Amino acid sequence: MPSIDVCFSPELLHLYNLSGKVAVVVDVLRATSSMVTAFAHGIEKIIPVSTLDDCLTQKQTGYLTAAERDGRKAEGFDLGNSPFSYMEENIKGKTLIMTTTNGTHAIRLSAAADKVLAGAFLNVGKVAEFLEAEGKDVLVVCAGWKGNFNLEDTLFAGALAERLKDTFSAANDATLAAQHLYRLAQPDMAGFLANSSHVQRLKNLDITEDVTFCLREDVYEVVPVLAGDSLVPLKSLPVS
Amino acid sequence: MPSIDVCFSPELLHLYNLSGKVAVVVDVLRATSSMVTAFAHGIEKIIPVSTLDDCLTQKQTGYLTAAERDGRKAEGFDLGNSPFSYMEENIKGKTLIMTTTNGTHAIRLSAAADKVLAGAFLNVGKVAEFLEAEGKDVLVVCAGWKGNFNLEDTLFAGALAERLKDTFSAANDATLAAQHLYRLAQPDMAGFLANSSHVQRLKNLDITEDVTFCLREDVYEVVPVLAGDSLVPLKSLPVS
Repeated sequence: MPSIDVCFSPELLHLYNLSGKVAVVVDVLRATSSMVTAFAHGIEKIIPVSTLDDCLTQKQTGYLTAAERDGRKAEGFDLGNSPFSYMEENIKGKTLIMTTTNGTHAIRLSAAADKVLAGAFLNVGKVAEFLEAEGKDVLVVCAGWKGNFNLEDTLFAGALAERLKDTFSAANDATLAAQHLYRLAQPDMAGFLANSSHVQRLKNLDITEDVTFCLREDVYEVVPVLAGDSLVPLKSLPVS
Repeated sequence: MPSIDVCFSPELLHLYNLSGKVAVVVDVLRATSSMVTAFAHGIEKIIPVSTLDDCLTQKQTGYLTAAERDGRKAEGFDLGNSPFSYMEENIKGKTLIMTTTNGTHAIRLSAAADKVLAGAFLNVGKVAEFLEAEGKDVLVVCAGWKGNFNLEDTLFAGALAERLKDTFSAANDATLAAQHLYRLAQPDMAGFLANSSHVQRLKNLDITEDVTFCLREDVYEVVPVLAGDSLVPLKSLPVS
């Protein structure tokens, strides 16, 4: 039986051997939620980059740029990190270069895995379906907040482990903790997260609608996968 | 109101500023549980060292040595890491040089804090009492397992945060997660931990009695504190 493990912070990633595994990178609030939303609305490709400079230097004619730092849209870029800004008609067929405080960096760090997916509550069901068909060991890489543990990414890891509990074993204590926390939170995730550090941070920025949206499960069917330096939508999802 | 934060692994310690804080290092299974037990039975001083070599080179006439690696007593040392081996009459007044897989290293890494305490379920009440009297920000440093998150140290962090919940604020999501997990586990901690990775490891070594003992709360009143390179029992506990 393949196993599912959880890495609570990119700062712990050096402890894991990614070879032969599928990495599921998650930054619920809000990078991977926005990415999934963007693909669901027709964006063709997302190039995740670690720094604001990379975001600008890789810009080409017709590309969109998205940059967020500390929860806010960075100056001089087309888009920020709200999923609602990726629901526009004009993103269809475009390439997006994106940098966020935590999520895009975590994706680049996970590139040693056999496959790297972007996961969010919005597409958790399809991610689980793909992982079951793949049958390889899984590592959920939580983007966290500047290296620190966060609750919302942990809850996603728990949700994914719950979906896979009959077909994957819990590799480690981090998986068990994530599952316990998700079961506890599931009846009212927004309430459970109300005191969490990042929700408090976003509350100050008055974007509670984003939080409510990012906590919805199974809204979209798309699974972004890293191909070279870019995320693209996984074309051939296994038949369920 | 001072705050209580939790660092889930020594590998994340560089993210925290320890200056002005009290660090409570915990390695429930079993380093800090054994230390607390040893002081409760009259040991005078414990010198925590990171490596087996340090343990041997610092040995002097009359000193005891204790060394554990991967859950087993290391060859050529007087004692291992079972709390029961520290209940003997002949340890009274002695100095002990100790190295364990995770716990002693975590103590040395935390030395930048204003004060460094060794915490365990066995002395959690007295640790809480001391922290309340001190009134400084607290960081619980979980020893973890070879850099990875573990459940039992997290539960201790949650237990301590629960004891302090009226007088300390939760600094971060890690504190909230630890509290949630502790509340969930508290009615039957051994049951809750039965599937955890380290309990499984110890089960293979047939030392489940150690686990049961290490999960008992408020057995001893001693609080080990780092003074220079050594742990000594805190003499003047605040009057409760």
